[in-house]
Amino acid sequence: MTTSNIVYAQSGGVTAVMNATACGVIERARELTQFDNVLCAKNGIVGVLNEELINTNLESAEAIAALRHTPSGAFGSCRYKLKPYSENPAEYQRLVDVLTAHNVSALLYNGGGDSQDTSAKLAQIFKELGANIQCIGIPKTIDNDLAITDNCPGFGSVAKYVALSIKEASFDVASMAATSTKVFVMEVMGRHAGWIAAAAGLAQDDPSHGPHIILFPERAFDEQAFIGRVEHCVKEYGYCSIVVSEGVKGPDGEFLSTAQGKDAFGHSQLGGVAPFLCGLIKERTGYKYHYAVLDYLQRAARHVASQVDVDQAYELGKTAVDFAAAGKSAVMPVIVRDSNQPYQWHIDEAGLGDVANIEKTLPDDYITADGFGITEKARAYLLPLIQGEAYPPYVNGLPQYVRLQNQLVATRT
Amino acid sequence: MTTSNIVYAQSGGVTAVMNATACGVIERARELTQFDNVLCAKNGIVGVLNEELINTNLESAEAIAALRHTPSGAFGSCRYKLKPYSENPAEYQRLVDVLTAHNVSALLYNGGGDSQDTSAKLAQIFKELGANIQCIGIPKTIDNDLAITDNCPGFGSVAKYVALSIKEASFDVASMAATSTKVFVMEVMGRHAGWIAAAAGLAQDDPSHGPHIILFPERAFDEQAFIGRVEHCVKEYGYCSIVVSEGVKGPDGEFLSTAQGKDAFGHSQLGGVAPFLCGLIKERTGYKYHYAVLDYLQRAARHVASQVDVDQAYELGKTAVDFAAAGKSAVMPVIVRDSNQPYQWHIDEAGLGDVANIEKTLPDDYITADGFGITEKARAYLLPLIQGEAYPPYVNGLPQYVRLQNQLVATRT
Repeated sequence: MTTSNIVYAQSGGVTAVMNATACGVIERARELTQFDNVLCAKNGIVGVLNEELINTNLESAEAIAALRHTPSGAFGSCRYKLKPYSENPAEYQRLVDVLTAHNVSALLYNGGGDSQDTSAKLAQIFKELGANIQCIGIPKTIDNDLAITDNCPGFGSVAKYVALSIKEASFDVASMAATSTKVFVMEVMGRHAGWIAAAAGLAQDDPSHGPHIILFPERAFDEQAFIGRVEHCVKEYGYCSIVVSEGVKGPDGEFLSTAQGKDAFGHSQLGGVAPFLCGLIKERTGYKYHYAVLDYLQRAARHVASQVDVDQAYELGKTAVDFAAAGKSAVMPVIVRDSNQPYQWHIDEAGLGDVANIEKTLPDDYITADGFGITEKARAYLLPLIQGEAYPPYVNGLPQYVRLQNQLVATRT
Repeated sequence: MTTSNIVYAQSGGVTAVMNATACGVIERARELTQFDNVLCAKNGIVGVLNEELINTNLESAEAIAALRHTPSGAFGSCRYKLKPYSENPAEYQRLVDVLTAHNVSALLYNGGGDSQDTSAKLAQIFKELGANIQCIGIPKTIDNDLAITDNCPGFGSVAKYVALSIKEASFDVASMAATSTKVFVMEVMGRHAGWIAAAAGLAQDDPSHGPHIILFPERAFDEQAFIGRVEHCVKEYGYCSIVVSEGVKGPDGEFLSTAQGKDAFGHSQLGGVAPFLCGLIKERTGYKYHYAVLDYLQRAARHVASQVDVDQAYELGKTAVDFAAAGKSAVMPVIVRDSNQPYQWHIDEAGLGDVANIEKTLPDDYITADGFGITEKARAYLLPLIQGEAYPPYVNGLPQYVRLQNQLVATRT
C-alpha cells in the first residue's frame, strides 16, 4: 500500500478546543496505516510557505492525548490571507512544491469562514495545477457564524464561560447593590454576530436575575430605550447586569466602541464598548458602575470548557482524516443536530464551496422584541451546546496544559 | 439552659467563599443547643440598624449546605462605615436596642480591615453601654491584607482564578503572536497591595512563558524599564504577557489609571490601568495589543474556587460560633500556617485590636529585584493557597448557586 503524509494547519483566532480537533486528527491518522505522519504547519499556512513542518511522530501518545484538554493552537495559528491565484501564482506553486516534496496527500485546514474560503480555493487550484493533493476544511470559530454546520467548535465553550461569568458577576452585584455598584457591564466578543452575547442570556433564569440587558450587533443601539431599561432594572430589581457585544453599532452604523474620546496619547480611546456604556450610564443616571472586558480569556477558558464542544471538536478532526483516507477533497465535516431533547448530533459532509464566505448572524426570532434579550427559540438552540464540564487535569493548583516539542522535519525544497 | 440568637453580618466586597463562612456559622450554630437561630443582617450592618434580620431557621439544611458553593453575599453586604461613637451615639444605641430586642448574645462580623476596626469598636462600646453582647470578627478579603492571619479567605480563590486566567491567555497569545497580537495585558484588583497580582505569577513555570511582567502597587511605575522589558520579551519569547494591579502608581504617586484622557462625555477616562498601558505600548513600540479587565469576575469566580480557600472560609465561620459559645468577645479566628510541604494549617484566636486598621502589603522580598516578578519566597507562600478545585454542582450546563428565601423576622422595636 502506498503511504503518505497529512498536513494539518490551524488558522485564525484560536479557541479552547481547537487542539481537541488536532488531537482527533493525529490520533485517527495514527490508527490508519495509510498515513505515515501528520505534519503540522508551524503558525498555520505560513508554515507551509516557509516549509516549517512539525514532526508529530516525535510526540508521545500522552502528549497528543493532552491536546484534548489544552487551549490555544499548539502548532501556532495565523492571520494570513492568500492573495487570489491571478495575483500571486508563485505562492500557490510554492504550496504545491512543499506539500509534494513531503509526500503530502491531504491538507487539513482548521479555521473559520475566511479560512474555508481559502480551503475551497486551494482544493480547486491544486486540481488545476495537476497536484494530487486533497484539501479538507475543518470548522472552527468562537463566532459560530459558519454556514451549513449547526454550530462551530469553540463556540460552546465560550458560550458556557460567558454565561457562567455573568451569572457569577450578577450574584456579586446583586448582593452589594443596596449601598454600592448598581450597574455592571460585561463586554464579550462577536464583532459581526451576536452568538456569544446571546449565550450569556442562558444565565438568566428569572426576569429579576442578570443579565437583564444584552446588546447585540444585530440591533442598532437605541440610547433612550437602553437608559430607560437600565433605570427600570435598578428600580425593579435593585441592580442592572448588562452583556454587550464588542460589535454593537449606533444608528449611524458606526461601532459604539469608536464613539469615544482620546486617551492620554491622543489616540482614539482604547477601551471597547463597555467603558463607553459606563460613561453614558454615569452621565444619564449617575449610577455607580463597574465593567469587565473578557477579551482572550473567553476563548482560552479551557478550565471550564463544554464537554459537548470538546467532543464535537475531536470528532470533526477525526472525521476529516477519514475523509482524507477516503480520497475526498473540497469537503468539510459539519455538525448536524438530530434532536434537542435529548440533544443528539452526528457529523456529516458539506462542500467547501457551500461554506465559504457566508456569515451566519443571529436569526431575528432569537432576539426578543425589545432587542435586549433572547427568546425561547434561542435558548433551545444554545442550551445543548454548553452541556458537560470538561475539566482539565490540575497539577499544583493549576491546569496542566501540554507544550509539545514542535520539532520541524528536515526541509526538502 | 438559657438560649440566645446570633446575628451574622457580611461586610465590604463579597468573595467566592464568603458564603462558605456563612455556611460554617449556620451549620455550627444548628449543632449547638444554646443558639436558637442565626439571624442574618440584610445588607450587612445596615440591616441591624434597619431591624431587617433574616430568619435562617426557615432555610432547609440543603439550602444552607449550598451556601458552601455559592459566591457573593447571600444576605447582602454593604459598604457602610459607622461614625465614631462621639459623633453618633444614637447609632450605637440603636444597634444595642435591636440586638437586645432579638435576644442576641453575639454579633459575628464578617469583613476586611475596615470592618474589623468596626468590630473592635463595637465590642468596646457594647461593653461600655452595659449590653451583654459579644462581638466577634471573621476575616474576609480578596486583598489578603489583614494582619495576624496568615492569609485571608477569598484570596486563595482569586489567586487561583487570576493565575489560571493568565496561563490560558498566555497560551492563546503565544500561539498567534507570529502574525497577530504580541502584547496582552490583564488588569487585576488590589488597589493598595499586590497580593492578587503576585498570585498571577504562579502561572509562570519558565521565563519564556507568561506572565512575563507583573506590575505591583508596591513599586512605582518606571516607563523606561517597562518598555524595555516588553521589547525584550517580544524579541526573546515572541510575545509579552503582562499582569497589572489596578493600584499601580507612577513616580508622582498618582494612580496610572487616572493619568488618562477624557471620554466622549468629558469625564476622565473610565478604563483602568490596562488601556493606559496599552496606549503607552502602542505609542512606544507599535506592537499590536489586547487587554482584559477581570473586575468582579475574579472575586465571584466560584466555578473554580480553591478547595483550601473554601475549607478555611468554612472553618473560620464554624470557629467564630465556637468562640461565641465560649463567651468570647473582641476576638477573631485567624489562619495559622504550620508548614508549607505538606501544607498544614489550623485556626487560632487573635484580638480584634491587633487586626484592625493594619494593612499588610507584599513583603519586599516577595518581588524580584527588577520589580517585574515574584520570588521563590512568594511562590512558597502563595502556592498552598490555590490547591484543590472546589467545583460547584452544575445543572443544565451552569453552576447551581443557591438563592435563599431571606425572610425577615418580625420587628420588635
